[in-house]
Amino acid sequence: MLTTRFTQRFDLTHPIALAPMDPASGGRLAAAVSNAGGLGLLGGGYGSHDMLEAEFERAGDAPIGCGFITWSMAADESLLDRALARRPRALMLSFSDPQPFARKVTDAGIALICQVQTLEHVQRAIDCGATVVVAQGTEAGGHGFDRQTTMTFTPEVADHLAAHSPTTLLLSAGGIADGRGLAAALMLGADGVLMGTRFWASHEALIHRNAKDLVVKARGGQTLRTSVYDIARGRQWPREYTGRLLVNDFIRQWHGHEDQLLAEQPAARSKVESAYAEGDCDTANVTVGQAVGLIHEIRSAASIVQEVSAQAKQLLQSHRAVEITA
Amino acid sequence: MLTTRFTQRFDLTHPIALAPMDPASGGRLAAAVSNAGGLGLLGGGYGSHDMLEAEFERAGDAPIGCGFITWSMAADESLLDRALARRPRALMLSFSDPQPFARKVTDAGIALICQVQTLEHVQRAIDCGATVVVAQGTEAGGHGFDRQTTMTFTPEVADHLAAHSPTTLLLSAGGIADGRGLAAALMLGADGVLMGTRFWASHEALIHRNAKDLVVKARGGQTLRTSVYDIARGRQWPREYTGRLLVNDFIRQWHGHEDQLLAEQPAARSKVESAYAEGDCDTANVTVGQAVGLIHEIRSAASIVQEVSAQAKQLLQSHRAVEITA
Repeated sequence: MLTTRFTQRFDLTHPIALAPMDPASGGRLAAAVSNAGGLGLLGGGYGSHDMLEAEFERAGDAPIGCGFITWSMAADESLLDRALARRPRALMLSFSDPQPFARKVTDAGIALICQVQTLEHVQRAIDCGATVVVAQGTEAGGHGFDRQTTMTFTPEVADHLAAHSPTTLLLSAGGIADGRGLAAALMLGADGVLMGTRFWASHEALIHRNAKDLVVKARGGQTLRTSVYDIARGRQWPREYTGRLLVNDFIRQWHGHEDQLLAEQPAARSKVESAYAEGDCDTANVTVGQAVGLIHEIRSAASIVQEVSAQAKQLLQSHRAVEITA
Repeated sequence: MLTTRFTQRFDLTHPIALAPMDPASGGRLAAAVSNAGGLGLLGGGYGSHDMLEAEFERAGDAPIGCGFITWSMAADESLLDRALARRPRALMLSFSDPQPFARKVTDAGIALICQVQTLEHVQRAIDCGATVVVAQGTEAGGHGFDRQTTMTFTPEVADHLAAHSPTTLLLSAGGIADGRGLAAALMLGADGVLMGTRFWASHEALIHRNAKDLVVKARGGQTLRTSVYDIARGRQWPREYTGRLLVNDFIRQWHGHEDQLLAEQPAARSKVESAYAEGDCDTANVTVGQAVGLIHEIRSAASIVQEVSAQAKQLLQSHRAVEITA
């Protein structure tokens, strides 16, 4: 047990949230994280009603939340209605302005979590009545900004919240995969962490085994930010967001040649999608962050939650290799 | 006082080293950091014998070290001889292979510090007999790699050292400007930190007041990595190194138009150099990292060392906002 304002507010045992990754964070993974004492967030992703219902069902009675890619969900707001009808533990909005949807969430009495990449985003989240902001550093897997890292963004956001909205809670995201990262985030001023990549390499993640195996082998220097998979898959991401992925043959071929890739549509899309289904990770996206270099085993989500928290607690108690003299 | 293996090895009071910035880290700044109980490192930079002698003189009897840009110093190795003749507290080599020079340092009985950006660099530093490796994240000001951030690189390097050379000490560099960053780095497995940007905005730094004032005002999202100043100044940096700077008019004009800038030589160089001398920071380089958003005041180097250490100590003792229950 490691108690922070975040665990107190959400009645958790460990200050750890699951990133609502699409499609890795299905109902089974979200439930496993929540049942272990963290906050599991179902990945609403690009959104389909059938998928959303099926994954909520799979989570059973576990107290999970749900997260959306805001600009994508905006095309069918009834997805948000459907998620809210499930009375989630929290509703997380990431990527583009949450304002048009925030009121619906807070009016329903559901805690709003907003992921942010700039201080302007932080203020926007405060204005929306967010209970939690997730400060995402550029080392994070998947979509985000190539702007600021967790080491500087977390304390800068903490300072902004202290000055403008001290009751808003703060989670760090990006580069955190073990208890060292959790303890560091707490020192930087966060109330907890949101982890994606570490849970990608869990037994419960809805990801091909080949992709999980690659994460176990990879080093942190083997990822980069690119738009090639968004182009290949025809996803209309706002320009400022790129995705961080493990570098593979597909990225080596197309990164820097985006115009040519666009001309390869729709063949590129079907090639990527079948590779994904088959676990051909030379061509399929492996959407993970720099924390891959800290992950050496595929584990159960519950053991990840427990061990990350226990390691952080041990570090905070013992100040490994540090003696403090008056 | 905050004791780690680093303070014990170098007989320091605080686990804080000054980045040997060229030209900010002159003898007065290095001496101030060492006299305050940290490790001051004189910036040997691009190197001139006159400058090196003058700045060592300025440091007086303070137990300072010295750092070089390795590929630049290689053009005149007698600079290294000159520095070693001063019996520095440590000799730091950054940027490109330290191997051709390492033996001369260690044979002189001087502690070798190697700055590293990849795990291959770490192993190279171990093989060179480095006493300390400085793991530099991409958020750092000045030259470095656009590869990995402090949050993931520090623990990944710590794991490599634990497996291959457990007595080698580890400092974190990049994004650290206050006690939160120092405490976080210790949690990530470092024995201390190396700070540049925070000391750039010190009274003692050999930097125009205008540039220091800009740091105080800037936010962390206002820097980027670019080669435009290396091109303008005719510095032959190895291709993989870029410099992180505060975005200004010059960068807005030339970043992405490097070929045109090259064609503007030698006018571009003299324009940048006179702007630098005059403190015209729309045109001159302001070579700082993402930690700018955490810096709100120009301070004396001694007060920076003492307060960063005291804040870290306080955080480590109190686990701000964290309660640990058995």
